[in-house]
Amino acid sequence: MMKVLLIIADGLGDRPSPVLGGKTPLEAAIKPNIDYLAKNGITGLIDPIAPGIIPGSDTSHLTYLGYDAYKYYTGRGPFEALGSGLKLEPGDIAFRANFATVDGNNIVRDRRAGRIRSGTDLLAKSLNMKIEDTDIFFKEGIEHRAALVLRGEGLSPEVSDNDPHEENVAVPKVVPLSKKGEKTARILNEFYDRSRKILNEHEVNREKREKSMPEANAILFRGGGVVPELPNFEIKHGIKGGYIAAVSLVAGICRLAGMKNFTPSGVTGSTDTNVVAKLKAAVEGLKEVDFILVNIKGTDIAGHDGNGMKKKEFIEKIDRAIGEVLMNEKDSLVIAFTGDHSTPASLKEHSSDPVPIFIHYKGSRRDGIENFNEMSVRGGTLRLRGNDLMNLLLSSANMAEKFGA
Amino acid sequence: MMKVLLIIADGLGDRPSPVLGGKTPLEAAIKPNIDYLAKNGITGLIDPIAPGIIPGSDTSHLTYLGYDAYKYYTGRGPFEALGSGLKLEPGDIAFRANFATVDGNNIVRDRRAGRIRSGTDLLAKSLNMKIEDTDIFFKEGIEHRAALVLRGEGLSPEVSDNDPHEENVAVPKVVPLSKKGEKTARILNEFYDRSRKILNEHEVNREKREKSMPEANAILFRGGGVVPELPNFEIKHGIKGGYIAAVSLVAGICRLAGMKNFTPSGVTGSTDTNVVAKLKAAVEGLKEVDFILVNIKGTDIAGHDGNGMKKKEFIEKIDRAIGEVLMNEKDSLVIAFTGDHSTPASLKEHSSDPVPIFIHYKGSRRDGIENFNEMSVRGGTLRLRGNDLMNLLLSSANMAEKFGA
Repeated sequence: MMKVLLIIADGLGDRPSPVLGGKTPLEAAIKPNIDYLAKNGITGLIDPIAPGIIPGSDTSHLTYLGYDAYKYYTGRGPFEALGSGLKLEPGDIAFRANFATVDGNNIVRDRRAGRIRSGTDLLAKSLNMKIEDTDIFFKEGIEHRAALVLRGEGLSPEVSDNDPHEENVAVPKVVPLSKKGEKTARILNEFYDRSRKILNEHEVNREKREKSMPEANAILFRGGGVVPELPNFEIKHGIKGGYIAAVSLVAGICRLAGMKNFTPSGVTGSTDTNVVAKLKAAVEGLKEVDFILVNIKGTDIAGHDGNGMKKKEFIEKIDRAIGEVLMNEKDSLVIAFTGDHSTPASLKEHSSDPVPIFIHYKGSRRDGIENFNEMSVRGGTLRLRGNDLMNLLLSSANMAEKFGA
Repeated sequence: MMKVLLIIADGLGDRPSPVLGGKTPLEAAIKPNIDYLAKNGITGLIDPIAPGIIPGSDTSHLTYLGYDAYKYYTGRGPFEALGSGLKLEPGDIAFRANFATVDGNNIVRDRRAGRIRSGTDLLAKSLNMKIEDTDIFFKEGIEHRAALVLRGEGLSPEVSDNDPHEENVAVPKVVPLSKKGEKTARILNEFYDRSRKILNEHEVNREKREKSMPEANAILFRGGGVVPELPNFEIKHGIKGGYIAAVSLVAGICRLAGMKNFTPSGVTGSTDTNVVAKLKAAVEGLKEVDFILVNIKGTDIAGHDGNGMKKKEFIEKIDRAIGEVLMNEKDSLVIAFTGDHSTPASLKEHSSDPVPIFIHYKGSRRDGIENFNEMSVRGGTLRLRGNDLMNLLLSSANMAEKFGA
């Protein structure tokens, strides 16, 4: 039995980039350690969900960990709330929320409160409260965005939005969409009224009034869903799992799966992160658990920025960290390296292009691929869908059971 | 967002052909335009249904358009009737039918009326009628083959055949196989009796009697099924779809899906068709809709004829048309080229061999395949099943929604 290190370079896959002479960032990057492991391991392409399906980081990480995304992905409300860093529990009801500006007649004047950029942390803090037996958590995100979470008995996402999705109309009351939603609707309407009052009197908004800036004086919410109960990772797979992720969304999913957090302090979810620290923490963590997922976000950030050069350079940074931390461990670990989806710099968005993957372990088959990239691995041993991955990692590590005799 | 042109060269895939020096028609064909698009796009193999399943044109086109063939393919009756050119509606009950010869005691003497070759159009016309509230449509096919369609309230395919499937036995009465089939059985028996009379007195049969040829004096029918209600293409995929197809079966499926017909006049379903006119009509149609399927039948005809050379030459004809019409459009369209199945000339029938495919669009990955054929694309980016295709085309065109965030 070996232990498994799954390194997910977020958004790794790409398309030919003009600034890289028509090469993809992976093709152009100087990455001797990654290429060594790929050459001496097995390689291929992976469709995180299925060909043609554009994955989110949430649906792909769920799938990679062995959870059917079509069953456990319960919508943007709960998964964006996970991404806010709130420590959610199964059964919580979560919404995407906006700070908005309404007038004295409760008419929406700006759904984004002037794309407010400061003070939302203070405003959000003031909105945590208890209504009836229900705890309400509110957490700011980027600009006007936020997450609203209800935790209590007898709650349901079967309620209407209070976000009218347009401006110059009144904020509607929340109504239950079924008998189940009655309590939730009542609590949400009470939350709205109380939050109006709290926000109106808040220091942050008082300053905005003085400066004649749009006030963040109302909360609009939409896309409610229930935080899913993921079957426990250890019970499901028979091994202890851990994770290292600076990105709240990925961390939140791993936490819901009952995996242990080994994320070292000081890492970020961007290109300035300390990859060496992450990989060292992973090697250390694997003394305690059998499997660790390491998410490295910088590749995705560079892709969303449309910066193929930065993505190439960040891949080189990952490679140096692999060289420094993992090359001495390569004979005792199963090391898998892939992305959760492609984020082509030319698109600045996720795409359905399949993602290259290598799996290296002592004694494995060797595909002999010289340069690990989207094109070279096409003829490799592996042609996977995301839901194959855990099975393959477990069997590579001799931790899987035979199906039959 | 780009628009999508899906070119289906019917029966495109093949096997090594002795008359082509052991090459497949695709391998042997001189096709610089197809090869250019393949080289600069992504390539691979597609199993229209699944490996080892021999597709019909009906089941593969259903699948490619995103409809589960195991759900919507309701049998040979309705789909052969679609192929007859009858404009069917969801809920119609359709049968495969034969012109047959019976004697005075209603004993089948020839199930195929001597493989009758002429006059069936006139005979068929005489059999359109109304019984009770039910409209009956009858359309001749090739030789003795025909389609019988019932349109009315309270009909069901749950009835027995009147085709005894052997000769020198009596034509049985149709019996209902369930309560639901009672009305249909009654109407079919009435149709049989009336058609016997009409055919007996028909000029065409009078001439046959004079020449002592077998008369087409009875209709045997079998394989009844209901014409399925396909979910509307535009509602299903969120885009407007059109089609160009000289083949009634393909046109009928697209029509049932609510797609718009852009088929130019004068095209045929054979190797003498005007491919340039089809592709020009497609480019023109894409000003109006987002997606057009073009079916080009000649490749399949040549395969069924066992004529690998003719298939190669027809592929070259398609290539010239692509060169003339599409090479100026290639940066603004997603161009996909594949077959709905393989029809190896050596088999003269469909086979389950996977079919090569390329997808070309500006900025795509490039597989660098030099000659587009069954063998060269094995190491390409794509390894698809038919039900992946629409998803992949939509995501290639940036018309798909992300699954998750």
